[in-house]
Amino acid sequence: MAYLITGAKVLSSESPYSFPARDVFISDEGIIEKVALPGKLSASSTHSDVVDAKNKILLPGLINTHTHAPMSLLRGVGDDLHLPQWLRTCMWPREARMDAKTMAIGTQLAACEMIRVGTTTFNEHYFHMDAIARVVDESGMRACLGYSMIDRKKSGDGIEFDFDGKGKDELAIGEKFAKEWNGKADGRITTSISPHATNTCSKELLVESARLAKRLDVILHIHLAETRTELAETLGLYKKRPAEFLDSCGCLLPSTVAAHGVYVSKSEVKLLASRKSSIAHCPVSNLKLASGGAAPIPEYLAAGVNVSLGTDGAASNNSLDMFESMKVGAIEQKNFRFDAAAVKADDYLKMATEAGAKALGIKAGVIKPGHLADLVLIDAKSPNLVPFTDNAGWLVYSAGPQNVTDTMVNGKWLMRERKLLTLDEEKILSTAQKTADGLK
Amino acid sequence: MAYLITGAKVLSSESPYSFPARDVFISDEGIIEKVALPGKLSASSTHSDVVDAKNKILLPGLINTHTHAPMSLLRGVGDDLHLPQWLRTCMWPREARMDAKTMAIGTQLAACEMIRVGTTTFNEHYFHMDAIARVVDESGMRACLGYSMIDRKKSGDGIEFDFDGKGKDELAIGEKFAKEWNGKADGRITTSISPHATNTCSKELLVESARLAKRLDVILHIHLAETRTELAETLGLYKKRPAEFLDSCGCLLPSTVAAHGVYVSKSEVKLLASRKSSIAHCPVSNLKLASGGAAPIPEYLAAGVNVSLGTDGAASNNSLDMFESMKVGAIEQKNFRFDAAAVKADDYLKMATEAGAKALGIKAGVIKPGHLADLVLIDAKSPNLVPFTDNAGWLVYSAGPQNVTDTMVNGKWLMRERKLLTLDEEKILSTAQKTADGLK
Repeated sequence: MAYLITGAKVLSSESPYSFPARDVFISDEGIIEKVALPGKLSASSTHSDVVDAKNKILLPGLINTHTHAPMSLLRGVGDDLHLPQWLRTCMWPREARMDAKTMAIGTQLAACEMIRVGTTTFNEHYFHMDAIARVVDESGMRACLGYSMIDRKKSGDGIEFDFDGKGKDELAIGEKFAKEWNGKADGRITTSISPHATNTCSKELLVESARLAKRLDVILHIHLAETRTELAETLGLYKKRPAEFLDSCGCLLPSTVAAHGVYVSKSEVKLLASRKSSIAHCPVSNLKLASGGAAPIPEYLAAGVNVSLGTDGAASNNSLDMFESMKVGAIEQKNFRFDAAAVKADDYLKMATEAGAKALGIKAGVIKPGHLADLVLIDAKSPNLVPFTDNAGWLVYSAGPQNVTDTMVNGKWLMRERKLLTLDEEKILSTAQKTADGLK
Repeated sequence: MAYLITGAKVLSSESPYSFPARDVFISDEGIIEKVALPGKLSASSTHSDVVDAKNKILLPGLINTHTHAPMSLLRGVGDDLHLPQWLRTCMWPREARMDAKTMAIGTQLAACEMIRVGTTTFNEHYFHMDAIARVVDESGMRACLGYSMIDRKKSGDGIEFDFDGKGKDELAIGEKFAKEWNGKADGRITTSISPHATNTCSKELLVESARLAKRLDVILHIHLAETRTELAETLGLYKKRPAEFLDSCGCLLPSTVAAHGVYVSKSEVKLLASRKSSIAHCPVSNLKLASGGAAPIPEYLAAGVNVSLGTDGAASNNSLDMFESMKVGAIEQKNFRFDAAAVKADDYLKMATEAGAKALGIKAGVIKPGHLADLVLIDAKSPNLVPFTDNAGWLVYSAGPQNVTDTMVNGKWLMRERKLLTLDEEKILSTAQKTADGLK
């Protein structure tokens, strides 16, 4: 089905953003074909539908570049605990009991939430990836999926790795998944090679991950300098800071998405910029887990690093709300620098859209001919969005999930007038509750 | 009309919070009369209505203890500017052009948003208070209203005050308003004496404000130590820090609500505790305006200070979302202290409910017999609220305005199934847009 969306104000394709009135024609292949002044387009084919979007705002779908979808089942478990205690006493024991079926229901739950908050694409780093991929397929969402690889030994006083055993097994699983699913679901699924982090993967695993990602021409998705522990352990092991060490392993590729990037030095910012790697900034999760400090966002932006935005998993956020992440990220940075101009609303809107698409190597995040029809409609007739001020701040500082009415991916509606179309939400919510209760 | 609300999970009346299943009977005087196990109550009078709240959560209405409602018209004006520049080039010129009619429409706009986000009471500090009071009356909301008094001279190199001229005039306006409206609108309106701050009011004005507030037995509402400028100017003028200076003026009363309270020393925390004054913590506004640092919330709580929660005006937030303020406040504190346990979800839920009622001297904020029927229903069958974990974190870290379905004040519905009943929302939004455009 092709669509002609009329009457909406449409996010401009470049920053500083505004919302000019435009009509948008979407081909039945799910591509934005034309963007024109109101009234200049007509539904050109017999199998096209006119969508009246009066009083609405048309946005590119939001792109969440770092999450762990099944962790939505663990939402609310161990709130207010310190990160190491939270991981050891709450997350790891439960994750060990999560099988493929559990992962599927967790992903369905996350997909319901993401579609409702206007997220069209997510970048996933977890386990039981086949189950997750099948849910992405059925949900109609777009995702970049990677199997989370770790070869650090669990016991022992020091830090020890087992590359020859665990590491090689992990690589084999990661490779198999990445090959099998890349390009599947009408191209909505792409894949990544996803080593966990610099203190949870051996040097060999990181080196091989980089080689594999290059060979398969897929994203390399990794956690980077999220916590002081990670920084300290990496320095202790290699006398190198995390980004420096990743670079020495060949892991800083133009196709690398490094999540968090909090404890990064000025010279590492330059290094990331020169390697053209992307950051997935996760401000809400960092604050909630008390990682401390703030990611050097103004420095990243000044150096030309592609900074995208993620929510992280719902267990550490506790939502998958990209609007919240935009606002919290921006105001946290302002306050941390004692400078209201340290970052701007435009920066954060770009992170959540265009920069996310760039990070994941997909032609989306902008409403422009030739781009994927991953789109969201916002109801501008809402008291929290009045007055309309025609700038990025209007959206970043005021809008929320309550304003999202419709979500489209690849030219297909996943939500219309707040009703989910591809997922049986009621059944998913009740199954998810039972499944989460069973993990206690 | 009396109501029997059945089938809901109801917020417990004490922290650590949980949500046991309870039925709640509300008298036609707007008072919570009975709270009992499910099935134990029946609609006892002929003029009562049974409300089926299955799958819903019943909360006390949220209490916003510091805002400037008409500033919703200035939402989005001067985002990303430094506070002094924002005030001088954006806020003050526009505020000077805002007349009573403008204030009324701004308050209507804010009321629409507040009712939608589950706020039932707000504590207001602004100008043209009669216009604001009339809107509170028609909207059905509850509010504590105070006329914002300033006697600092606008020009001049140093800081000069004009108590004998401006200050006395301001006091007269503030007193007249406070007397005239206290207890009006079926008791939904209470009033305050509202001197602006320690660096914008003369010592005489502060001393007289305290006397007046005591004499009239109303709230004293003031800004306290919001910015470093305010701290520096107060120290420069009086060799006292802001809370110390307020105390020397007699302004730290048990009925004092001091907004912000960011740049406060440990000894001032003790002083506030000993005077039993309340803080209106405004984390989102503080972050957005880059005030820097973080209010000493763990110290306030440890000392027994009554900490409530506010959004501040929508021009500096840019929303009136108390859910957001709970979450942002809590996660900001955790991160600032490098300690996920520095504050807990329970602390923030209490701030937004019970502590807010205590600050404003109203019998609300708790679902208990004898308390005002200011209530909110939340739809728990929402993907961002599954799984239900029966604790404060479930609400504080995951819920948002999209989950609020019904709002009641004084036993009367202001919103049912997301439809506003007391205000003509569509007309208000269109008038507000035109009015805001006219202020440019």
